[in-house]
Amino acid sequence: MISGERFTVEYLLKGDEKEALAKAEDICVEQSIEFPKDLVAKSLILEHIIGRIESFKKVEDGYLATISFAIEITAFEFTQLLNVLFGNISIKPGIKVQKINLPESLLKHFNGPKFGINGIREFLGVYDRPLLFAALKPMGFTPKELGELAYKFALGGIDIIKDDHGLTNQVFAPFDERVKYCVEGVERANSETGQKSIYVPNITASYDETIGRAELALKLGAKGLMLAPALTGLDAIKKLADDKNVNVPLFSHPAFQGSYLTCSESGFSHYCLLGQISRLAGADGVIYPNFGGRFSFTKQECINIAESTKVKMGHIKSIFPCPGGGMSLDKIPEMKDVYGNDVTFLMGGGLFRHSDDLVENCKYFRSII
Amino acid sequence: MISGERFTVEYLLKGDEKEALAKAEDICVEQSIEFPKDLVAKSLILEHIIGRIESFKKVEDGYLATISFAIEITAFEFTQLLNVLFGNISIKPGIKVQKINLPESLLKHFNGPKFGINGIREFLGVYDRPLLFAALKPMGFTPKELGELAYKFALGGIDIIKDDHGLTNQVFAPFDERVKYCVEGVERANSETGQKSIYVPNITASYDETIGRAELALKLGAKGLMLAPALTGLDAIKKLADDKNVNVPLFSHPAFQGSYLTCSESGFSHYCLLGQISRLAGADGVIYPNFGGRFSFTKQECINIAESTKVKMGHIKSIFPCPGGGMSLDKIPEMKDVYGNDVTFLMGGGLFRHSDDLVENCKYFRSII
Repeated sequence: MISGERFTVEYLLKGDEKEALAKAEDICVEQSIEFPKDLVAKSLILEHIIGRIESFKKVEDGYLATISFAIEITAFEFTQLLNVLFGNISIKPGIKVQKINLPESLLKHFNGPKFGINGIREFLGVYDRPLLFAALKPMGFTPKELGELAYKFALGGIDIIKDDHGLTNQVFAPFDERVKYCVEGVERANSETGQKSIYVPNITASYDETIGRAELALKLGAKGLMLAPALTGLDAIKKLADDKNVNVPLFSHPAFQGSYLTCSESGFSHYCLLGQISRLAGADGVIYPNFGGRFSFTKQECINIAESTKVKMGHIKSIFPCPGGGMSLDKIPEMKDVYGNDVTFLMGGGLFRHSDDLVENCKYFRSII
Repeated sequence: MISGERFTVEYLLKGDEKEALAKAEDICVEQSIEFPKDLVAKSLILEHIIGRIESFKKVEDGYLATISFAIEITAFEFTQLLNVLFGNISIKPGIKVQKINLPESLLKHFNGPKFGINGIREFLGVYDRPLLFAALKPMGFTPKELGELAYKFALGGIDIIKDDHGLTNQVFAPFDERVKYCVEGVERANSETGQKSIYVPNITASYDETIGRAELALKLGAKGLMLAPALTGLDAIKKLADDKNVNVPLFSHPAFQGSYLTCSESGFSHYCLLGQISRLAGADGVIYPNFGGRFSFTKQECINIAESTKVKMGHIKSIFPCPGGGMSLDKIPEMKDVYGNDVTFLMGGGLFRHSDDLVENCKYFRSII
């Protein structure tokens, strides 16, 4: 019933050595049986179910405890894996999930991304350079205006053109109309340029609607889907990635997810949540705010994300880091140094700044990559 | 197209006055158009779509900005409402959502809880005292062992007997078997006591499975459902609350949700997330760690939660605060002082401590309420 196979989680713990060790011991119980250990008599529980400290050491920012759990306590469900990693202890201060190490016996229950880096490159026919990503905005534009913007982005050479994450199904830009106009705009530009740019609508919605919007978007010709997993639940990405009828790349947006990352003492490392967890969910690209923009991620945190999008994880494919958020074109050279070739640069409002001619701005963006 | 109706959000902002005001101005743009305001020409956007600072004042912990948004930008979707409240700014430090104020024009799109306090009291036939809540654990018990435990809890007078939130569909206690045994255990006790205790399984699962487990549980005779919205997405509760075929109370569990609460400078207030948002979602009871247990909520934070479960919110019903988490029986008198009568006391491992006889311990728990 219990295989003996275990996975490990590295937790960064705050406090002095005694406090940090107490936290580690507490995690073993809290994240498994959540019950006074001294009242447990059953050997299955004592020997297998309760978490086990595999190592404990001082590191620069505190103490690093590696704790193992039986793979069976996850029930091989993504939601329950997340619950074991950080369920109740999300409510306790001074605990950060740094990294997960999953054996093949657990990984085999996850398909991961359908496309990944190589798949997206084939899908777009772009093999030798970073990809360009732009967002349709501002909210308040009509479907027709957004479609025209999509046309210009694609004409200027942007590879992936997505909805701003705040566009859902507002009365001034209903989902179905918006998708129609934007698909049409990008296809019209593709027919002129010979490129294979794609339009990626935001399908973040209510529990029932998200999947319905995915289906509708694909029917209308969208060639990618974006959703914010902190709003829909991370498993919504997995559902789409596992669906044989969804044959387009999936992009994860960080809206509402920041609280897991912005608190230095608690939550997840950028490496784990944006890289490892996004890949397990099945995102082909993970959108996040770059260093030097209007958000607070550091250069090192961004380097860590990029690393974790590509680190070996069994059969789970590498995915595109998609840094963006208040970026200006003059930041591109430094970003190229940090990320190399396998990156998708996301430009928002900044694309409008270079000159009055949006198509020319996109071409300039493309030329400096 | 735009009614002119607006809702307001109170944000607690860190920094000196200048920094806090800059944060407030930034929120107006970031949470609506996410685009350089100076590049916007369209009057609909400038007059309606962009957020508006309604008031800004110094408070004890920083600055409190009340910002209004057009109700239409939420698309009347729960997920998009959450996105407007705290989507991208979750990634920016020093911003906490303190309180929301929704006009009837927006509230009417939400049904809220089906039962609420009065509905649960009628469902259980208990009108004049706090309710008792206990959790089936530890993980590793068989369905039969858990069913026996459920029987003893109910025999001892516990009103609501729930799965521990880590029990999902593990091989050692598969969901369907567990529900069968626990339903049977509680019904057997009810037939002896004449009470109407209920068994509440945890249905937190993958995107597809959550609703399926709800249906299966109801078919097997469960009289309540629990899920952790930070794992399933908050909208999963709403889907169940809105479903005409789900005629049992719903309980929200805080697993994985702590990161929104534990960082003093960022996230949500306890008042807003656990009270207001849980009610909007449609939870009939909200589980959270009490002060004085093994978690870090303060007494004041718990008082705030209790207040927000009952504060006037249009037609949205009041719900039960369900404080628990490492509570011992000797804390009950103080908890009664704080919460009054309309509360559900959740006891976990502590119920096993008082003596070796679990049924007697439950009866004692009941006697001191």
